[in-house]
Amino acid sequence: VDEFELIARLRERLGVPEDAGRAAPIVVGSGDDAAVTVPPGATAVSVDMLVEDVHFRLSHSPLRSVGHKALAAALSDLAAMGADPGEAYVQLGIPGYVDEEGCLELAGGMATVARTHGVAVLGGDVSRAPALIVAVTVVGHARSADQLVRRSSARAGQALCVTGELGAAAAGLRLLEQPELADAVDPGTAAGLRLRQLEPEPRVEAGRALAGAGAAAMIDVSDGVGGDAAQLAAASGVRVEIDAARLPVADGVAEVAAAAGIGALALACEGEDYELLVALEPELIPAAEAATAASRLTEIGRLLPGRGAVIRHPDGSESAPPGFDQLRGHRASGGVPP
Amino acid sequence: VDEFELIARLRERLGVPEDAGRAAPIVVGSGDDAAVTVPPGATAVSVDMLVEDVHFRLSHSPLRSVGHKALAAALSDLAAMGADPGEAYVQLGIPGYVDEEGCLELAGGMATVARTHGVAVLGGDVSRAPALIVAVTVVGHARSADQLVRRSSARAGQALCVTGELGAAAAGLRLLEQPELADAVDPGTAAGLRLRQLEPEPRVEAGRALAGAGAAAMIDVSDGVGGDAAQLAAASGVRVEIDAARLPVADGVAEVAAAAGIGALALACEGEDYELLVALEPELIPAAEAATAASRLTEIGRLLPGRGAVIRHPDGSESAPPGFDQLRGHRASGGVPP
Repeated sequence: VDEFELIARLRERLGVPEDAGRAAPIVVGSGDDAAVTVPPGATAVSVDMLVEDVHFRLSHSPLRSVGHKALAAALSDLAAMGADPGEAYVQLGIPGYVDEEGCLELAGGMATVARTHGVAVLGGDVSRAPALIVAVTVVGHARSADQLVRRSSARAGQALCVTGELGAAAAGLRLLEQPELADAVDPGTAAGLRLRQLEPEPRVEAGRALAGAGAAAMIDVSDGVGGDAAQLAAASGVRVEIDAARLPVADGVAEVAAAAGIGALALACEGEDYELLVALEPELIPAAEAATAASRLTEIGRLLPGRGAVIRHPDGSESAPPGFDQLRGHRASGGVPP
Repeated sequence: VDEFELIARLRERLGVPEDAGRAAPIVVGSGDDAAVTVPPGATAVSVDMLVEDVHFRLSHSPLRSVGHKALAAALSDLAAMGADPGEAYVQLGIPGYVDEEGCLELAGGMATVARTHGVAVLGGDVSRAPALIVAVTVVGHARSADQLVRRSSARAGQALCVTGELGAAAAGLRLLEQPELADAVDPGTAAGLRLRQLEPEPRVEAGRALAGAGAAAMIDVSDGVGGDAAQLAAASGVRVEIDAARLPVADGVAEVAAAAGIGALALACEGEDYELLVALEPELIPAAEAATAASRLTEIGRLLPGRGAVIRHPDGSESAPPGFDQLRGHRASGGVPP
């Protein structure tokens, strides 16, 4: 495939959403040495890279899903800042066994996410590579830097809440790897769990709503609720306690876990849910719940003076949250284990 | 290697230059979901990815040079906009045969370039990968978007000039691939040519000076002076003529070309020089020369009404510039051919 022609076709497939440039006017789009925008105040930038056979397998993931997930995972970091997504840049490493049609399918998956969030893909780079590599950079905006929510500003006494439900992405991965487990749930539930693994939806709206509702600190649930809560707590210099019984476990996760011979808690803590973990003053919870009505908010624990992270079980016992120990190993953001 | 510990060591090795944040204040550095800056007006963003055995070979390139070149090539795009470099983000795909020490060496090469240009590396991502992948995003700034120079705004009647000298990077690649060719030049010249291939220097200062001196359009010389001039002309809707005899060929390039049995013009047009090609009103050339004194400016051709790109030879004949035809093939930004 001709590189310049492929880039032209990728640009066409990615398109430019009608509301692109809403967060920051676009002065120079793709095709120059650099794209140029005029940010309204503060910008937030995050990068995320998916590598074939580390973060996904082509035997499980359609190329459309790979494109979807790469952009969604990057936007999830902007959601955790409460930023308004603006532009994205994509670097593709293309192996010989992915043809032009495959690249366009990947771009199509990315375009779906881009349209949903008004994100313009303004630039990129394509190259041959020994495996499929999708490196994404996303730029988000806010009127001022103090509107963006860090992970380091939680305080003891605050509540820890999470959006949506946990464990679906991990259960979906099990269903992709062991299709026979699908007998444990009805077909619609199984399809939904697989989709949460393949095509997660970043909680962009919820992130903005929580930032507006007084979120003290936020982080997205990529490495697992326990590990990510531990990171938020460590960055903020506080201790975190999570109540196992309060974790909002998605429908079907318990059944898949049982069929796989593992605990539902392990799946709920495995990660890749791309929900948001937020530290809030307890009195702000009702307003935050109202603001994120489309993406249910559950109080799952609290921040205390001290250090570390524990999960409290219904019988009163405590343990390190599943997923927390794995922080010490090379963990490739969930997905395919090393 | 522990991922979190590796990231901590990479951050330490990359450091933060003393003058970081000069172009745009840094509010949140690395370690959060996203980095946050406050751009002064307009921002320019560009991405560049180097893939092992496509853009470099570890048998020729020390890891320090790979890190240097990855950041330098990305900054060269900002130089071609006349932007003030601000921040960088780095995604590393690490194969099993590159150990922690190797990653730190790569980061050290990047840190050298970052320090030279006051660039802060504010974030990144590391992952296992089947080959070494270095994907870089750079963000540059200007007080307003109209201070940034596009490639599409050249006009017929303007002169085409280039900074510095051409062909050194291509000659250096030949010396790395065929060490016996080094007999054609003295050892110091050979070392200099190899360095231009391995560790190019982006023309950031010259780019800003040319933007200030009235540059109408700019592009950096990555794919070759002929091909890049053709791109500038096509984007601007004009025709470009280059005078072969006026190309500023670097010392030693003719000798290496002769020893390799190819023409000096072919090497001078091969690319990866990371010099700047600039379209200027002829009367602005003296001021532009004065402004870029540290990086000599040479008038090499002109822009005319029409379409296409030709190179004029001393005997009066014309040809498509070497490198121009290759635009139609999958060319991996010079370097190791497919």
